[in-house]
Amino acid sequence: MSYNLLKGKRGLIFGALDENSIAWKTAERAHEEGATFVLTNAPVALRMGTIKTLAEKTNSEVIPADATKVEDLENLIEKSQEILGGKLDFVLHSIGMSINVRKGKHYTDQNYDWTHKGLDVSAMSFHKLMQTLYKKDAMNEWGSIVALTYMAAQRVFPDYNDMADNKAYLESVARSFGYFFGKDKKVRVNTISQSPTPTSAGQGVKGFTGFMNYAEKMSPLGNATALECADYTLTLFSDLTKKVTLQNLYHDGGFSNMGVSQEIMEAMEE
Amino acid sequence: MSYNLLKGKRGLIFGALDENSIAWKTAERAHEEGATFVLTNAPVALRMGTIKTLAEKTNSEVIPADATKVEDLENLIEKSQEILGGKLDFVLHSIGMSINVRKGKHYTDQNYDWTHKGLDVSAMSFHKLMQTLYKKDAMNEWGSIVALTYMAAQRVFPDYNDMADNKAYLESVARSFGYFFGKDKKVRVNTISQSPTPTSAGQGVKGFTGFMNYAEKMSPLGNATALECADYTLTLFSDLTKKVTLQNLYHDGGFSNMGVSQEIMEAMEE
Amino acid sequence: MSYNLLKGKRGLIFGALDENSIAWKTAERAHEEGATFVLTNAPVALRMGTIKTLAEKTNSEVIPADATKVEDLENLIEKSQEILGGKLDFVLHSIGMSINVRKGKHYTDQNYDWTHKGLDVSAMSFHKLMQTLYKKDAMNEWGSIVALTYMAAQRVFPDYNDMADNKAYLESVARSFGYFFGKDKKVRVNTISQSPTPTSAGQGVKGFTGFMNYAEKMSPLGNATALECADYTLTLFSDLTKKVTLQNLYHDGGFSNMGVSQEIMEAMEE
Amino acid sequence: MSYNLLKGKRGLIFGALDENSIAWKTAERAHEEGATFVLTNAPVALRMGTIKTLAEKTNSEVIPADATKVEDLENLIEKSQEILGGKLDFVLHSIGMSINVRKGKHYTDQNYDWTHKGLDVSAMSFHKLMQTLYKKDAMNEWGSIVALTYMAAQRVFPDYNDMADNKAYLESVARSFGYFFGKDKKVRVNTISQSPTPTSAGQGVKGFTGFMNYAEKMSPLGNATALECADYTLTLFSDLTKKVTLQNLYHDGGFSNMGVSQEIMEAMEE
Repeated sequence: MSYNLLKGKRGLIFGALDENSIAWKTAERAHEEGATFVLTNAPVALRMGTIKTLAEKTNSEVIPADATKVEDLENLIEKSQEILGGKLDFVLHSIGMSINVRKGKHYTDQNYDWTHKGLDVSAMSFHKLMQTLYKKDAMNEWGSIVALTYMAAQRVFPDYNDMADNKAYLESVARSFGYFFGKDKKVRVNTISQSPTPTSAGQGVKGFTGFMNYAEKMSPLGNATALECADYTLTLFSDLTKKVTLQNLYHDGGFSNMGVSQEIMEAMEE
Repeated sequence: MSYNLLKGKRGLIFGALDENSIAWKTAERAHEEGATFVLTNAPVALRMGTIKTLAEKTNSEVIPADATKVEDLENLIEKSQEILGGKLDFVLHSIGMSINVRKGKHYTDQNYDWTHKGLDVSAMSFHKLMQTLYKKDAMNEWGSIVALTYMAAQRVFPDYNDMADNKAYLESVARSFGYFFGKDKKVRVNTISQSPTPTSAGQGVKGFTGFMNYAEKMSPLGNATALECADYTLTLFSDLTKKVTLQNLYHDGGFSNMGVSQEIMEAMEE
Repeated sequence: MSYNLLKGKRGLIFGALDENSIAWKTAERAHEEGATFVLTNAPVALRMGTIKTLAEKTNSEVIPADATKVEDLENLIEKSQEILGGKLDFVLHSIGMSINVRKGKHYTDQNYDWTHKGLDVSAMSFHKLMQTLYKKDAMNEWGSIVALTYMAAQRVFPDYNDMADNKAYLESVARSFGYFFGKDKKVRVNTISQSPTPTSAGQGVKGFTGFMNYAEKMSPLGNATALECADYTLTLFSDLTKKVTLQNLYHDGGFSNMGVSQEIMEAMEE
Repeated sequence: MSYNLLKGKRGLIFGALDENSIAWKTAERAHEEGATFVLTNAPVALRMGTIKTLAEKTNSEVIPADATKVEDLENLIEKSQEILGGKLDFVLHSIGMSINVRKGKHYTDQNYDWTHKGLDVSAMSFHKLMQTLYKKDAMNEWGSIVALTYMAAQRVFPDYNDMADNKAYLESVARSFGYFFGKDKKVRVNTISQSPTPTSAGQGVKGFTGFMNYAEKMSPLGNATALECADYTLTLFSDLTKKVTLQNLYHDGGFSNMGVSQEIMEAMEE
């Protein structure tokens, strides 16, 4: 079903790895809603993934970019505007990676080179992206920038490791840069704090399936899927949400405001 | 412009007093987006307002109801379903009134009969509305209930008086009832915390214009208008936000996450 | 052990029912720390409880007062100043009661007369208390007012029923009145959001023991006891926290900032 | 005045530069309250400051340490335990520095090498400190770790630059590490979010005096001083707050929960 909600809008989508990705679903749905966009991912991720399938399906081009390198971002943003024929209306940042998690380092036993690198990829990349967009004046007025985040930025999820701190930094960057992007360019910046989602990235986290079940039982509407997150993201790209900015928006079936659910209490009693 | 975002959906809209009302704008926009709905307001408000104009324009019927009376709500919900031909998909609660404010009683010198009455109208009415909808099983699955609120529920705005406490209660009811409505009926419940808006109700508050200017200077995107709030409300009624529930959502040009803006600092220095 | 932390301070303590009460423990500890105070409770509660034992132990007088009646509060505050020989330095509000809970009415099936009555006792009483203190100019500069609350004001605990909304109202009153009390009288007003505590009141709630276990497993330091809450309350009455105001302070072993703990995940897996 | 609140406790205090520092005041007050402790700062800061005066006054030793270097922290923690004769009961982290601020780089024009370096000094140092304390099992049970932060972590203060994001990271580290420190060692970890304070560090920020005035007018009790912050910090080091953990605690005269004050509204109208 399509509403033509993004008809005529131009965008840039980071982080579509495979069909489980939220970014992938967002690209599919944005295409259905009438948007044109460029897809991008890190060169190494592009080799692993199947993004070409998505590009063909959505009639998009793919431009590789390492989001930690300003020169890559500059090239990406210039080329995107050329390809799309104008400034951008929306940008999705869906990038996150912790080397400490990958290598099995506990949060109390971090390798700080890896901590810095993970922060650079997962959070400072969002500042670099916005600074490049801002300096190049690459966003249209009333454009919309969204980054995906997770509630570990506010509360403790022990297995989330240093990604919790990375997400806290990312959300702060959204507010801090969002102020200047709003005031100077009339562009809004928000983060979406999504339910645990069985993406290829998420599934690598220890105890992920058990945690999915816990979140499902805690959330009155159940966990939000990647496709539902894509739908929600579209509303933030649309002209219907022009005055929503600097916000961290929970898209999680209600999890974030639960203290405990009846289902969890019952599961505990068993 | 229309996206047919609410095509085929049935609703119930409280609180459209005149064309400055957020509820009025929401009704106009919901009509444009393909929804059918019933309008309602307190009998006294109906006499003061011009709701018939709105009813004609949106091809709606008007049913008077005192939202503090459960029997009025029962009648309203039964009749609405008859008129619309089925269960409801969306409900907007836009009701608020403080007798202490109207009568010029300071927050430190409340008349508690008035405090109770204001709470009943402004906040407990939301519980009564939801309890009646719930008991009558009057909402479709994946329906959406929204109440309008204000940030005085979280932070001090001295002139907002006992409406601050009423809004805090209202937002709590949204979470508390939202849990049961989500779990048992798959219905979402949220509140929208809107910029100060020059409605006929808002304009009665002391120092309102000065405060509007302050909020405008503080918000990177400026204050949100009633029409923009209507647009945002529609996204919450649409199928694109099915997993957003128990949330208090700021629609305020960024005000809520500002500590201070450059404009305010400059205005202070003058 | 005593630090003489409240040496020479005069106070008023509501809600000491029996030796399980937080207010009871606070009175005992305040006495040890050198304070003098008046104890008060509703006439009906005084008949049920053993407050005379506490009064003797702490060398205090007991003045009955229905906290929903302004005339009772006026009498209480006048008499307390006479007895103690001056204005008050600290006040503890530890009052809460839901008739809907007592009578077994579900949150989705409220009796609204009871809802209003419960709000009056649990939350509006705090406004009445502060309004009376304020009008009578009964607090010393840099005095401290504390009310006890629970996190159900922010997040859903299904069995907490309408007490959740009452606590949200109470916390809002603390902020709203705290502004005027701070600006006009240099008095601070805060709420303490305490772990579930096995007081005589708390134990009446359905499934309380199971919930205590859940909270214990979720909190990295375990649940806070009534005695620990008393100690924490003393710090807020002391001269060491003069600039803490309008805050809701979690005293809960860390529960409030947990998403999930390892113990809960393990309990779920069993 | 002394309560012997920290009698027999051993601690470690970072960041006492000169007598305006919060850490300096905390050291003076901790000494008065019966604690013994080691003072530390970066070698370059030690050369600039007058910490020897403080050391003599409080009968403390000074150990230089670069808080970004794990080997320096290891040495510091080992030596401190030797000097003090046992494990530590309290630690204060009061370290922050942004090279982008110092060099006048705007937030939208960051030098990312400096951004990384500032984060390392201001925020990752707190993780390194806790990881070293944790691995060396250097804290006593029911010990207390506090870091100083600022509300720019939650809301936008345009001139605070990348320190906002650093503080958001710091506060996340407090929660994330606080969980493991609580569960495994019974140690609490909190941050204090202090009013703008005219320390030597703070005064370097652009428009600081104007901002101090703004915060003073917004806060019902006025800005909190460095000495008042020291007093509050002591309560968190004491045995009276054993179950407070993972919290970010505002010590700001009420600023954090203000939407607007009458004084600000009046100043705007002039």
